[in-house]
Amino acid sequence: MKGIVTLLTDFGTSDPYVAAVKGVLLSINPALDLVDITHEIKPQNIQAAGFVLASAFNYFPDGTLHLAVIDPGVGGKRRGLAAATQRHLFVGPDNGLFDRAFTLAPPRLVVSLENPDYQLPEPSDTFHGRDIFAPAAAHLTLGLPIEKLGPPISYQMRFAGRLVLGDQDELQGEIIHVDHFGNLISNIEVPLRQSKDELQYLQVLLAGEPVFTGPDIYEQAPPSRPFALIGSSGHLEVAVRDGSAYEVTGHGVGAPVVIRRQE
Amino acid sequence: MKGIVTLLTDFGTSDPYVAAVKGVLLSINPALDLVDITHEIKPQNIQAAGFVLASAFNYFPDGTLHLAVIDPGVGGKRRGLAAATQRHLFVGPDNGLFDRAFTLAPPRLVVSLENPDYQLPEPSDTFHGRDIFAPAAAHLTLGLPIEKLGPPISYQMRFAGRLVLGDQDELQGEIIHVDHFGNLISNIEVPLRQSKDELQYLQVLLAGEPVFTGPDIYEQAPPSRPFALIGSSGHLEVAVRDGSAYEVTGHGVGAPVVIRRQE
Amino acid sequence: MKGIVTLLTDFGTSDPYVAAVKGVLLSINPALDLVDITHEIKPQNIQAAGFVLASAFNYFPDGTLHLAVIDPGVGGKRRGLAAATQRHLFVGPDNGLFDRAFTLAPPRLVVSLENPDYQLPEPSDTFHGRDIFAPAAAHLTLGLPIEKLGPPISYQMRFAGRLVLGDQDELQGEIIHVDHFGNLISNIEVPLRQSKDELQYLQVLLAGEPVFTGPDIYEQAPPSRPFALIGSSGHLEVAVRDGSAYEVTGHGVGAPVVIRRQE
Repeated sequence: MKGIVTLLTDFGTSDPYVAAVKGVLLSINPALDLVDITHEIKPQNIQAAGFVLASAFNYFPDGTLHLAVIDPGVGGKRRGLAAATQRHLFVGPDNGLFDRAFTLAPPRLVVSLENPDYQLPEPSDTFHGRDIFAPAAAHLTLGLPIEKLGPPISYQMRFAGRLVLGDQDELQGEIIHVDHFGNLISNIEVPLRQSKDELQYLQVLLAGEPVFTGPDIYEQAPPSRPFALIGSSGHLEVAVRDGSAYEVTGHGVGAPVVIRRQE
Repeated sequence: MKGIVTLLTDFGTSDPYVAAVKGVLLSINPALDLVDITHEIKPQNIQAAGFVLASAFNYFPDGTLHLAVIDPGVGGKRRGLAAATQRHLFVGPDNGLFDRAFTLAPPRLVVSLENPDYQLPEPSDTFHGRDIFAPAAAHLTLGLPIEKLGPPISYQMRFAGRLVLGDQDELQGEIIHVDHFGNLISNIEVPLRQSKDELQYLQVLLAGEPVFTGPDIYEQAPPSRPFALIGSSGHLEVAVRDGSAYEVTGHGVGAPVVIRRQE
Repeated sequence: MKGIVTLLTDFGTSDPYVAAVKGVLLSINPALDLVDITHEIKPQNIQAAGFVLASAFNYFPDGTLHLAVIDPGVGGKRRGLAAATQRHLFVGPDNGLFDRAFTLAPPRLVVSLENPDYQLPEPSDTFHGRDIFAPAAAHLTLGLPIEKLGPPISYQMRFAGRLVLGDQDELQGEIIHVDHFGNLISNIEVPLRQSKDELQYLQVLLAGEPVFTGPDIYEQAPPSRPFALIGSSGHLEVAVRDGSAYEVTGHGVGAPVVIRRQE
């Protein structure tokens, strides 16, 4: 039965772990199309994983299942969950990983993965991705009603909500992700309508230092100088044209960011 | 014709090599589903590749073909092989890469890849993965009888067999793989039934130093202190909760490991 | 509608960018098979990307679409293009990325991507891969005539043409790629017929220093000593048996290479 499953983990790509998860998925539903979001989340960095998932999941077609495993509490008391939103399904540990995605797409039902009929026999205490999450995900893609996996639970957000620039005079956030190009991505979202015309009327501070604002596109930015832009995920970013803002500024995850309307 | 082919190489993922192999596979059988196990085996490390393959292959459905190319002897005297086990097919160089997998799943037939009808025209001397192994694999997924690829051969194991903890008082092994999380994975297998209750009654030495035993799961382990556990592949591992045993202990591949029944 | 799309970018694999592109492709055509060529081109290295694409694309079956996005000029004046060659389709920025591929497979039609009907609504200025190239590619795989995407344009080569060893006494080139194994790959192509017998009669200089010639295969090369061979892409390479020519010689991209008929 056709279906798309995305995978997001901190397993890296040099070990047998990702392949074992894919093997379990395909053993239960050989017709699945598997799409890697990434396996290079820094080990056990739940917040970074939540950001990456929230930036990617919504581009996938209706019915896609997102399997995400960043799981420092594996084998302990944290629950596993499956959730259904209006368009998608989600499976993984209940540790805050899905907070950002569920803020954008609230789940209509969340269940705790407790039914051993949809787990591998004798699941290990160290690899629920393979033994519990993958079988649950694969059975859902075969049409299993989500209620069969376990009792409904109420999803509790672990992390702070979204920071969206509205009518405030000032908003304070921080860098939450440094991407492959060295762009510093903040947790401050700026609605697209504002970015094009208004960003030049805003002041942006990175770790207390003003950052150049104005250019919409890389080509218009001065070389080697950090500038603020609204990135493709709608977040306020600091970038350097033909270079790495991470290297040029020396700032990374956790650096404070302020956006302020100019006098 | 539908079919799953897994790929395991030391090609890395920044060159055109993996894509060329996939292009050849899909040119012969466009309906294949291709699943990467990993392409990040350290160049020419046959033993590490054998461990990763053996930890992953068995999770794939019946009929899956495993194409593995770690091939320091390419173009020389080593043979290429195709093999059929009860559930799977295997294609790659005959250099010991399949020892561990074939210990778990003995082949019922192994042939030497000698039939030029199932190779690219004028195969290069440096890239049998693309020119010989990929075409052989793709033709097998189309239903070609394995005997057509070349004469049967007797598979010779190159590496030592498995080390499984049975009734011995002591077993000596070594670290064979350091995973993405810094876990040190040994070649000593401990049957699952024993691990849960009995591991605390065993003494584990890493490079001569005793390692803490007892916790089944990461959450119960003391922070920053190496502890022994039975990993998800059934092998004795040394791990550090929320950290890297590789960094904390300074030991890696080749470090001696002893497991001993306590007095 | 079935179809194969390859992806080649400099996005890396740790961010949501590749997944967003794949999500857009699959939202428009859920039956696509997606094959990564690589996402590890050094940021904005158009020439390296062109080499990797040219070494891989031709192994894919008829009808394959190659989506390539190395795009330092995103949002600026560079055009986006779609092109049809005899066997394949290509989509990406018009910045020279396709020069090498189009030298091997000349396009019969190239169009400028200008029709907003086949773009995401309100495309960003920083991520045309997701907002313009992916939708164009996906619609082509559904059978959209390429002319619908925009007006025809004349493809202009940006980089120098191929360097193929013919009857010259000497040919001067340079290293254009260092692969995962540390092999130094030059832009000098040597037709396969010549390589086997004739390479030993040629002198090869790397950065002015003579390089050993003679062995066809790694096993015949002396250990630790750089030697010249014709690689699997038909290019003159410098390699070291069981080692890295990059580390042994200290030379990399840009190092001059001379091939010369011996007296």
